[in-house]
Amino acid sequence: MTYELYYWPGIQGRGEFIRLALEQAGADYRDVAREPDGMSAMLHLLEDEAQPYPPFAPPFLRDGEFLIAQTANILLYLGGHLGLAPTDEAGRLWTHQLQLTLIDFLVEIHDTHHPIAGGLYYADQKTEAARRAADFRANRLPKFLGYFEQLLDANPAGAGWLVGDTLTYADLSLFQTLAGLYYAFPRAMATVQDDCPHLAALHDRVLALPRINAYLGSERRLLFNEEGIFRHYPELDP
Amino acid sequence: MTYELYYWPGIQGRGEFIRLALEQAGADYRDVAREPDGMSAMLHLLEDEAQPYPPFAPPFLRDGEFLIAQTANILLYLGGHLGLAPTDEAGRLWTHQLQLTLIDFLVEIHDTHHPIAGGLYYADQKTEAARRAADFRANRLPKFLGYFEQLLDANPAGAGWLVGDTLTYADLSLFQTLAGLYYAFPRAMATVQDDCPHLAALHDRVLALPRINAYLGSERRLLFNEEGIFRHYPELDP
Repeated sequence: MTYELYYWPGIQGRGEFIRLALEQAGADYRDVAREPDGMSAMLHLLEDEAQPYPPFAPPFLRDGEFLIAQTANILLYLGGHLGLAPTDEAGRLWTHQLQLTLIDFLVEIHDTHHPIAGGLYYADQKTEAARRAADFRANRLPKFLGYFEQLLDANPAGAGWLVGDTLTYADLSLFQTLAGLYYAFPRAMATVQDDCPHLAALHDRVLALPRINAYLGSERRLLFNEEGIFRHYPELDP
Repeated sequence: MTYELYYWPGIQGRGEFIRLALEQAGADYRDVAREPDGMSAMLHLLEDEAQPYPPFAPPFLRDGEFLIAQTANILLYLGGHLGLAPTDEAGRLWTHQLQLTLIDFLVEIHDTHHPIAGGLYYADQKTEAARRAADFRANRLPKFLGYFEQLLDANPAGAGWLVGDTLTYADLSLFQTLAGLYYAFPRAMATVQDDCPHLAALHDRVLALPRINAYLGSERRLLFNEEGIFRHYPELDP
């Protein structure tokens, strides 16, 4: 069965968390909206009122007749089917809990450059963005990073992964979050990195996974840019 | 087994979505942080580095030895255990997907009065809040409400619930969202209500559930106030 991923072409965005899981599992998938006529296929699905499970927004994933949306929900589904999460209830929910916390973090990262409205340009909300980003750098960034650093430090399995001694999709998502932050906030990250050795090690450990490494060097991996969630605006990272 | 809910006392907040599910199921639970010394018990759990599943933030729920956080994750867990969600994979994930979309909506509702920083007072970000709330009323509120209205309209089971022909926790959460919006944005809601008859009917249907009705009239139900997520600031709803 070929999975079909639907997400805005041109940005990593939330779709990237799904791509990393599919790539690490070696799953057969299509990135539909990046194919010719793929955008119209995606918009058609979004507007199709006959869908039994209509998504509110991309990303969504089609697996046969099943259409599933919400990034964390897709990973909850794929985690079980691709072997990227524990199979017991406690482990499955814990992995999902970490993913939901990473998504909360992601919203706050996005809102550093769009604190007023997603429908407006950054240029239309630069003053507010500067204020929000300052609070983000001072308070929210260290709080979220400190939480995940502490988890890695306290994991009794001690293998450097978030959940037990095995890679899960939460590790891939934490890697993506860190990679995005290194891109968007290099100066702020430099000031906290000495306090986060486990995070840096996890980033490098994921980077060295053969399938992830091959993916990141391929044309399938989009580059970070100033259309996505992680944007490098020097004035927001002084 | 008595469930233990931990959430900031004094506000409905995210904890209310959990309370409504527990109340509708007739579950035995304690609202720990509202009990004497409950706040210190909650803070102790939040700071306990020996916890195998440490939460990032309230709410969290203790069920025996199991500690689970993230509102939608708690409901995913309770939905199965309390009979408030389908038991098949597709139905379970669809109900969860709706909950995650309601949580996205909730974040945007919150950020109308706190667009810059959760750690600052509303008075410190009133100018930005006015701008964000204007976009929310014009664009985001109708988009989210229209999505759920359309779901109710298209549900082939036609019983007035979101998922199939049976009440789920997603209906309770949609009720809470609507109740909060009626409180916070009465004028904006008045302008959209003619377009959303199914939402109004769902609100009233949940309100009439005997256990929910008894709960809402009890002292266990906190009132909406200007410390919570849904705040009525007339200047944000002109």
